[in-house]
Amino acid sequence: MERRYFDWAAAAPPETAVSTLLEMEVPFGNPSSKHTEGRRARKALEDARQRCAAVLEVPAERLYFTSCGTESNALVLHSLLVRQKRYSGGAALPALLYSAVEHPSIRENALLLERLGFPVFCAGVEGDGRVSERSLSRIIAKQGKPRLTAIMAVNNETGAVMDMPKLTKFLRNIDGPPIHIHSDLVQAVGKIPLDIQRWDLDSASFSAHKLGGPRGIGLLYLRKPLEPIYTGGGQEGGVRPGTENTRGALALAECLERRAHPAVVAETYALAVERWKLLISALTSMERCRLIPVEREAEDPRFSPFILQAAFHGIPGEVMVRSLDDAGFAVSTGSACSSGAKTRPVLAAMGLDDTLSFEGFRISQGWSTGVEDIEALIEAIGKILREL
Amino acid sequence: MERRYFDWAAAAPPETAVSTLLEMEVPFGNPSSKHTEGRRARKALEDARQRCAAVLEVPAERLYFTSCGTESNALVLHSLLVRQKRYSGGAALPALLYSAVEHPSIRENALLLERLGFPVFCAGVEGDGRVSERSLSRIIAKQGKPRLTAIMAVNNETGAVMDMPKLTKFLRNIDGPPIHIHSDLVQAVGKIPLDIQRWDLDSASFSAHKLGGPRGIGLLYLRKPLEPIYTGGGQEGGVRPGTENTRGALALAECLERRAHPAVVAETYALAVERWKLLISALTSMERCRLIPVEREAEDPRFSPFILQAAFHGIPGEVMVRSLDDAGFAVSTGSACSSGAKTRPVLAAMGLDDTLSFEGFRISQGWSTGVEDIEALIEAIGKILREL
Repeated sequence: MERRYFDWAAAAPPETAVSTLLEMEVPFGNPSSKHTEGRRARKALEDARQRCAAVLEVPAERLYFTSCGTESNALVLHSLLVRQKRYSGGAALPALLYSAVEHPSIRENALLLERLGFPVFCAGVEGDGRVSERSLSRIIAKQGKPRLTAIMAVNNETGAVMDMPKLTKFLRNIDGPPIHIHSDLVQAVGKIPLDIQRWDLDSASFSAHKLGGPRGIGLLYLRKPLEPIYTGGGQEGGVRPGTENTRGALALAECLERRAHPAVVAETYALAVERWKLLISALTSMERCRLIPVEREAEDPRFSPFILQAAFHGIPGEVMVRSLDDAGFAVSTGSACSSGAKTRPVLAAMGLDDTLSFEGFRISQGWSTGVEDIEALIEAIGKILREL
Repeated sequence: MERRYFDWAAAAPPETAVSTLLEMEVPFGNPSSKHTEGRRARKALEDARQRCAAVLEVPAERLYFTSCGTESNALVLHSLLVRQKRYSGGAALPALLYSAVEHPSIRENALLLERLGFPVFCAGVEGDGRVSERSLSRIIAKQGKPRLTAIMAVNNETGAVMDMPKLTKFLRNIDGPPIHIHSDLVQAVGKIPLDIQRWDLDSASFSAHKLGGPRGIGLLYLRKPLEPIYTGGGQEGGVRPGTENTRGALALAECLERRAHPAVVAETYALAVERWKLLISALTSMERCRLIPVEREAEDPRFSPFILQAAFHGIPGEVMVRSLDDAGFAVSTGSACSSGAKTRPVLAAMGLDDTLSFEGFRISQGWSTGVEDIEALIEAIGKILREL
């Protein structure tokens, strides 16, 4: 059976050009070695960093290769653990503020830090799933100014796009010691226009495999180096130890060049909006369908046109996932990273009741999704609704 | 100029069969996704785990894919950080004992834990660079029984092979709460016969790229699951979060099957010994040469026949590395992971003076090294000695 893939937010199909790169001969030496083989690998690695920097419009020395987006996020959060000289003293630990709709790699690490005694606060979201100045000011008024904030740019379950420049400006204007502002850009890069400098971020996370690249390679932007909780051979400026993944770095550079150049993003975005308008119009005309959030419109800049969360009255999300899978379509419930979880913290944070959370499922598209894929999906959903 | 590579301990040249695997179509789905693409990826990942387990003769459910050997080591050490419920209390923190010749990914993380207030002790080594019962009993008599020990099986700078079954037996026989015994097997796997079960290890680290595989994939054996300091989507049984690297896992399985099967290791080892006898005999007949340690013999089961540390009187190791590089040979000074460091902690721990440490350099071979490569290296060293 022909398969049509609508789970790009979990993993993008590999890019042909990147697969070709995997076959290429890449200098195999250890980039830390001083011999010819090592220097060749070092040059390839630094070329990859320059190429990533050019696309992201940041200085190359602020980019650190990591093993994945999850690690990039954890590196930033757990740097709090080493800010203290020792744990035995009575000094106040630095506070972390994260949004209620963060990916598990932020949320779970925040909860771990809380368990270890750090002051950790969660900012609620508006009914549309977006972090607002209001939600930030409410929690900060109550808990005080944090030292670190983690707010994603695009939510992986609803596609909610946060107004990053507005939010960082708000945070910067609060009196008190400076805040480190971190943002998970995994679902944003290559999908919506990014501007790390204008957004005034202190750090940002990226993953190659959501961009058609291989697993095992991610990226971390850091305005200033930080001390990580994992250390070792001092690679990547001491930020990420371990022999550098030269081939992965080159593949990531290739993905960014192909998918994240501003002009490409603008074009990809516009096409995605057109396809999503088609999908959303069709779904909302179906009787039992409700978009999540319900106020989402067919063309709506508050949401990424690559992700859609919807629910059908009386049909559990898991049943929809299975029925569509049987019909040849890959969709998902929550994020793949929490596919084992019983709860939907992102939907709960938006004030959805358990029934609706239970019925929610995610459709996500990418650059190679075609109008005919959307039409086939609409038809398949219609058929399932008639049969169930 | 033809290059001859003698820095296998830093990075092995990629295996052709593994490169072929990189070109293969591997299920791209997210193994945590519930649709067909996800289930196919899950199956591939679990097949890879089974294949690794079969070679290492351990249950598959005790193997966890990580991003590299450094991460595998850090995961175990930093699990100490989460053993405590909170840091604010006055409860005694668990103690860590590591050997003075550990790789930076153990040593540096141990020093970080010490800075954070954990009791951390370093066991000295004998003059031959090996950890002995005597060195362990001395430090434990002084500092008390640790809760975690880290002793590598094969040293990456000298090739010193530790008597793991003897050392673990000694540690197990000490009265008091149980010890978690960890071993970095990165330089051991595929090189010397391993027996994780008989060695009675609680955890062990592996890396694919020292076995001819790609970067970005490592392995951790854990007798019992541990709670990591980085958390996230619960992948790999909660031990290592982040979307699983299916292609990397398959490549690692391929490497282990090709290089770490007991029969293959026996054959590879025997051939390596023959080539090393040739090299060591030639070097020791050169006037200014001294092996490190000096008591190392041409055929010596106390040392891995894949790694050799030597020094030439009056010639800094870095000069030898550069001169050999110019002549077409890749050798190194210390480990690539500490190529930027000014000191040589491993050699210092063996009681070597600074001059000798400064002159030391490492030659390391692998399965595709030929007798003609050894002969060419001997000739090149002789030529350098005459010319310098």
